[in-house]
Amino acid sequence: MNAIYFDNAASTPVDPEVVQTMTDALENLFGNPSSLHSLGRRSKAALENARIAIAGACDCQPAEITFTSGGTEANNLILRGAVRANGISHVITSKIEHKAVLDTISDLGVDEISYVKLDERGVIDLDDLVRLLGKSAGNATLVSLMHGNNEIGNVNDIRSIGRLAAAHGALFHSDMVQTLGKCTIDLSDLPVHLASFSAHKIYGPKGAGFAYIEKGVPIAPQLTGGGQERNRRSGTENICAILGMAKAVSLTAARQVGDCRQIANLKRYFIAQLEKHTPEVGFNGQSRDAQSLCNLISIQLPGAYPMIHFQLDLNHIAVSAGSACSSGASKPAHVTAVLGIENAAIRISLNRYNTKAEVDVFVKKLRDLLQSVVAGS
Amino acid sequence: MNAIYFDNAASTPVDPEVVQTMTDALENLFGNPSSLHSLGRRSKAALENARIAIAGACDCQPAEITFTSGGTEANNLILRGAVRANGISHVITSKIEHKAVLDTISDLGVDEISYVKLDERGVIDLDDLVRLLGKSAGNATLVSLMHGNNEIGNVNDIRSIGRLAAAHGALFHSDMVQTLGKCTIDLSDLPVHLASFSAHKIYGPKGAGFAYIEKGVPIAPQLTGGGQERNRRSGTENICAILGMAKAVSLTAARQVGDCRQIANLKRYFIAQLEKHTPEVGFNGQSRDAQSLCNLISIQLPGAYPMIHFQLDLNHIAVSAGSACSSGASKPAHVTAVLGIENAAIRISLNRYNTKAEVDVFVKKLRDLLQSVVAGS
Repeated sequence: MNAIYFDNAASTPVDPEVVQTMTDALENLFGNPSSLHSLGRRSKAALENARIAIAGACDCQPAEITFTSGGTEANNLILRGAVRANGISHVITSKIEHKAVLDTISDLGVDEISYVKLDERGVIDLDDLVRLLGKSAGNATLVSLMHGNNEIGNVNDIRSIGRLAAAHGALFHSDMVQTLGKCTIDLSDLPVHLASFSAHKIYGPKGAGFAYIEKGVPIAPQLTGGGQERNRRSGTENICAILGMAKAVSLTAARQVGDCRQIANLKRYFIAQLEKHTPEVGFNGQSRDAQSLCNLISIQLPGAYPMIHFQLDLNHIAVSAGSACSSGASKPAHVTAVLGIENAAIRISLNRYNTKAEVDVFVKKLRDLLQSVVAGS
Repeated sequence: MNAIYFDNAASTPVDPEVVQTMTDALENLFGNPSSLHSLGRRSKAALENARIAIAGACDCQPAEITFTSGGTEANNLILRGAVRANGISHVITSKIEHKAVLDTISDLGVDEISYVKLDERGVIDLDDLVRLLGKSAGNATLVSLMHGNNEIGNVNDIRSIGRLAAAHGALFHSDMVQTLGKCTIDLSDLPVHLASFSAHKIYGPKGAGFAYIEKGVPIAPQLTGGGQERNRRSGTENICAILGMAKAVSLTAARQVGDCRQIANLKRYFIAQLEKHTPEVGFNGQSRDAQSLCNLISIQLPGAYPMIHFQLDLNHIAVSAGSACSSGASKPAHVTAVLGIENAAIRISLNRYNTKAEVDVFVKKLRDLLQSVVAGS
C-alpha cells in the first residue's frame, strides 16, 4: 500500500460523497431509463438532473452534454464522429496529445494529418498553427489540441487556438480531461466546438465521462442501437456512474477556488524544496511556471535511473513516469520522449488531501535515492 | 413506485452483494490499473481476477473476454471490429435481433445484408439460412443471430446455427445478453466465435458488459488510445462495475439451476392463471413453450388497448410493451411489429424475487382492465 499518493493525474481517490451517491443509485434506481413505467421514469429524471448539474458547472446547455464511458470514449466519439459527419479531410493536432487522441487520429483515414510545431518545452507555435490552417483552405478541417497536458502540465492557450480555428472555418476540439476542476471551463464563452471530459480525475468514478458537442455541430454516433443520448450514443445509461460523476463535478466546481489555491501553494512549496534539496533535478515542460496545471510537476533526473520508480514504490510513494494511460507496462512516457528528454522523468500530480509532510518525505527520499541509485545510461 | 416489478428483461435490481463489492472497489481500488506502482497493480490484479471468474462461469479462456461498457458496446465492437478485421462483405442476420445488432449491421457499409426467414412465431428457418450461406460462397461472411430473444423469449438453436456457419466457413456471432444466467453458456463447447453479454440483466450494474472473442479471431478495436484490454478496447477500466459484474456472474452461475427451476415454475403458474382468468389473451412467439426463456412471457391482448401499460403503471405494476432499449418513448415494440402483431403486446419478465401472490395481483388487474379499458383500433 502506498502511503503517499502523488499520481492523481492517473486517477484520484473517489470522494466519500460520490461513493454514497453511487451506492444510493445502485440500491434505488435500477429501472431502465428507457422504460416507460414509473421506475424507468425515475431513472430517466435522475439522469437528466445529472446532465443539468454538469452543464451548469461547465456553462453550457444540457443538450450539449453526451454521456460516455470515459474520456477515451469521449475523444473517440468526437474525433470519429466529427470526421464522418463533417467530411473532414485534414486534422491538425500535436505530437504531445493523449494517446486516445493521437492514436484515434491516426486511425481516422483522413487525407492529411498535420502536427503543429512545439518548442522544447512543449509550447504550441501559434504561427505554425496559422500556417497549417492557411494551407488547409477549402478543405474541411478539424483542430484537436488539448487544454492541459497530462504529462508535463502545460496549459494551452485554447482561447487563441479557438479564435484562429474559427477564423479559418475549422472545427476545434480540446481534450479537457486534465483541466476540469483546475481551470475555468466556461464552454459558452470559450471558442471550442467539441471537448472531452472524464470523472476519475476529479474524485469521481472510473467508467464515466462526457463529450461537449456545441449545438449545431454534427457528430455521427459510434455506438448504434437503442438510440440513447439523442441518438449520439446508444447503450443503457450507466446511471450510478453518471450520478457519481455529476456529484463529483458539482463538488469540484464548489471547491475549485479553495482547492486550487491550496494545491498550488503545495506545488510551490514542493518546487522550492526540490530546488533546495535536489538542485540537480530539472523541470519538464512548463510545469514550474505559474500558468501550468496547479497540481502537476514533471521533473527530470540527471540520468536514466531505470530503477527510480520501483525504488519509490518500495518506499510507499506512488508517482508515475508519464501517462498511466499507455497500458504497456514498460513503454517510456511518450510526451517526454517527443520532447527529446532521455533522462528519467517523474510526474508528480497532487490532490486535495496531500500535505507538506508528504512532500518532505518525498524530497528526502528522492535525495537519498539520487545519491545511492545508479543513474544508468 | 412500482410494487410489482415484471420488467427484468429491461433491467434487474442489483444484488446487495454486488452493491457491496462495488462500494468496496470504489473505496479501496482507486489506482489506475495501468499504473506501475502497487496501488495500480492491486487494481490490475482485481481486474484480472474478475476476468478469470467470468471466464470460469462461461467456460472459456480469460484472454477471450474483453470488458466493455455494456451489451450495446460489445455488439458494436464485435460487429464493427469483425467486419473491419476480416473483410466481411456479407452479413446474415434476422429482423428480430436487438437494435444494437440490427442498427449496427445497417451502419457497417457491407456489400450485402441478408435477413433469414422466420415463421409467424419468430422461429428461424434453418433451410433458408443454408440457402443464404450457400449464396455467400467465396465471400467473407458473418452470421449474427441472437441466443434468446428479448421481446418474445424464443431461444434459438445456436448449436445448429453455429455448425451450419462453420460448415460454410462463416464467422458466427450471437447476442447472449438475455440467456446469461438462464441457459448454459458453455463457450468452449458451443460453436460460436463471438458473443455479447451484459451485467444489468443478471442483478449486476448498468454500464458493464463483455465480449467473447474466440482465440484467433481477429477483431479491430473501436476505441483507440491507451491500448487497454490487449489493444481491443482502450480506456481506463471501470473497475467497480467490472468487479460488480464478476460478482453478479459468479452469483448467477452458482444459483442458476435453483433460480431457473423456481422462475420456470412461476412462469408455468403465470401462464396457467392467464389461460384460466383471461382466456382472450394470446401468447407471442414461443414464450408459452418449454424451450423459451424461463423468465419471459409475451402476451397479446384482443385489441390495441393503447392505454394498457399506463393503466398497469398507475396500478404499480411495471411491465413493458417490448424492448426497453429503444429509447424513443412511444415507438412500438419492433419484434412484435416485424411478426405482424397489431394488437397490444405486454412483455412480462420475471426475477428471482417475484412471487405467486404478485402473479395473482397482475392477472386479476389485467382481467379487470380488459373489461373496463377500451380496446382501441
